[in-house]
Amino acid sequence: MTTSGDGPLVVVVMAGGAGTRFWPLSRRARPKQLLPLTGGRSLLRLAVDRVTPLVSPERVLVVTGAEVAAAVRAELPELPAGNVLVEPCGRDTAACVGWAAWRIAAASPDAVMLVVPADQVIPDGVALRRALAAAAATARARGGLVTLALRPTRAETGFGYQELGEIVGREEGLEVRRVLRFVEKPTRECAEAMLAAGTYRWNSGMFAWTVGAIRSELRRLLPALAGGLDRLSAVPAGGEEFLDTWRSLPAISVDFGVMERAANVSSVLVDFAWSDVGSWPGLEEVLPAVAGGVRLGDVVTLDGSSNVLVSDGPLVAAVGVRDLVVVATRDAVLVVPRDQAQRVKELVELLRAAGRDDLL
Amino acid sequence: MTTSGDGPLVVVVMAGGAGTRFWPLSRRARPKQLLPLTGGRSLLRLAVDRVTPLVSPERVLVVTGAEVAAAVRAELPELPAGNVLVEPCGRDTAACVGWAAWRIAAASPDAVMLVVPADQVIPDGVALRRALAAAAATARARGGLVTLALRPTRAETGFGYQELGEIVGREEGLEVRRVLRFVEKPTRECAEAMLAAGTYRWNSGMFAWTVGAIRSELRRLLPALAGGLDRLSAVPAGGEEFLDTWRSLPAISVDFGVMERAANVSSVLVDFAWSDVGSWPGLEEVLPAVAGGVRLGDVVTLDGSSNVLVSDGPLVAAVGVRDLVVVATRDAVLVVPRDQAQRVKELVELLRAAGRDDLL
Repeated sequence: MTTSGDGPLVVVVMAGGAGTRFWPLSRRARPKQLLPLTGGRSLLRLAVDRVTPLVSPERVLVVTGAEVAAAVRAELPELPAGNVLVEPCGRDTAACVGWAAWRIAAASPDAVMLVVPADQVIPDGVALRRALAAAAATARARGGLVTLALRPTRAETGFGYQELGEIVGREEGLEVRRVLRFVEKPTRECAEAMLAAGTYRWNSGMFAWTVGAIRSELRRLLPALAGGLDRLSAVPAGGEEFLDTWRSLPAISVDFGVMERAANVSSVLVDFAWSDVGSWPGLEEVLPAVAGGVRLGDVVTLDGSSNVLVSDGPLVAAVGVRDLVVVATRDAVLVVPRDQAQRVKELVELLRAAGRDDLL
Repeated sequence: MTTSGDGPLVVVVMAGGAGTRFWPLSRRARPKQLLPLTGGRSLLRLAVDRVTPLVSPERVLVVTGAEVAAAVRAELPELPAGNVLVEPCGRDTAACVGWAAWRIAAASPDAVMLVVPADQVIPDGVALRRALAAAAATARARGGLVTLALRPTRAETGFGYQELGEIVGREEGLEVRRVLRFVEKPTRECAEAMLAAGTYRWNSGMFAWTVGAIRSELRRLLPALAGGLDRLSAVPAGGEEFLDTWRSLPAISVDFGVMERAANVSSVLVDFAWSDVGSWPGLEEVLPAVAGGVRLGDVVTLDGSSNVLVSDGPLVAAVGVRDLVVVATRDAVLVVPRDQAQRVKELVELLRAAGRDDLL
């Protein structure tokens, strides 16, 4: 079996998240990646459109969950049906990436695999494709695991960071550096120190590697997962044996389980605008400002400022309010101060406990 | 023609208002009086239920507008169809009361007429009926025009006041006093002075008089209106001549046009709980307090206080907000600080100017 990486480029779109932070717009059957948070198309649709100039739709795999699979297929009609991999239940990103790697390897053992999340906003598709091409070239040239490293713009405590070492290459005009270590969700002080140091960057959740390299690292670092993926590949997808095996996979993220412990990790340094739109106020990173806030959908205001006003149907009429998040759908309305927007998760738990499944 | 007042008691329910202050719950076809603002039945239904132990439904007339007539009839199926008088367009309360008086006089020239608004909240029906009976008895015994005078509970600048003079009678155990003068919507200072004086009361918008007395005062004080009502009574209701005559009636309130200038006005002093629910925060006068605010419909909260949260369908989920009014319907959501709730009228004007007739 060849694992040289001289083979085709395949893009794996990770589209599994639940995204309760965008309730009431996000629901079990319509999580964040299916929402048109930038106003027009869904984040998933935009994510695929960004990469299809690089690879044909036949070379795009989407990994998603059972509850949203039908919606994902409807959103991406150009993809062959077999290119949507449906996880019976969530087993975190190492299993997601691993399943895709095993699937790709079966057909193209020398493929290079690019991994991109479905729920990010990257307006400059040209810059992204240049960076992905550089990452793929790095994976081919250097082997090991490759990430895209984002220039940090604030001392964000919700993201993962990576410390960069010496320059190990240059591809497509972009610098490639060795990754010295990863730092997950730091304290405020630590985040500020890393921002000041200049040698740290944000993890992007985007990766490049040959299927040989990732399979080899999974076998070394997560042998139980690799063994499970071997068994999974030997049985018909969707059958009972498949389901049992899938459920038995260890649930661990690719960051914790692989990247932090891998032997040879390098990063392509990128500077393009990027947002993970992590919460309702995060819309401000991806929508034009209106009166110090943002508006999406049918909204009318009288005075007020710095509000996040979103409608998926009903008119939202805001009079004289400030620093408020209002999100209205036909069956639920959320009102929360912007600095408490992350409490939406608590609210969703409250609704679940109250048996309001119709609204989840 | 006898005008003695020995005849039957007839209750006239004034149900004409538009009530834009309760948008988005109130619409052109569903104004305030048709809303279940106390949680169960509409204010109109409750108003009629309060008086029907006093008179049979055949003796209840409702005066309303063309846009809501069908809804009013549906809300009051027990009333004979002819008991709903439909104004082709609003001509204020003098014309409303006058039309009812002319209609009643045609059948019962010696009737006593009680006038009550459809959009007030009076939880104690027994106390109200006692007061109305006292007012009717006063109208029979003393002639002239009789009102119910409410004990003021705050220096309200949005109401009309009346200064009371000497005791002129006692009916059903309630004091009846001469009205010396009326004071419309006073300044803050003036309202506080009247509250302190103890000799001023709030107008209730509720009246009692013989049809002879009110017709005589309308002929004396508003001869153009009385002449128009004479002509109106001589033509078929709803025909072109009727419409032309109605449109030609002077638009003036019964307070300005009649009460302030009438020769003989007395008031029955009442102490029952009363609210005109003048705005969304006014709901606090008629609903039980929850966390310093009120809730109506499908509402869930996490922390927060002193909010007015109302749903007519969608779940309203409020997290960590205070002193806020949120009202949600299937097609519109209002968010406004409670101390700016009166600005809903501005908002409705804005929507009208923007051609959003579907939401008005």
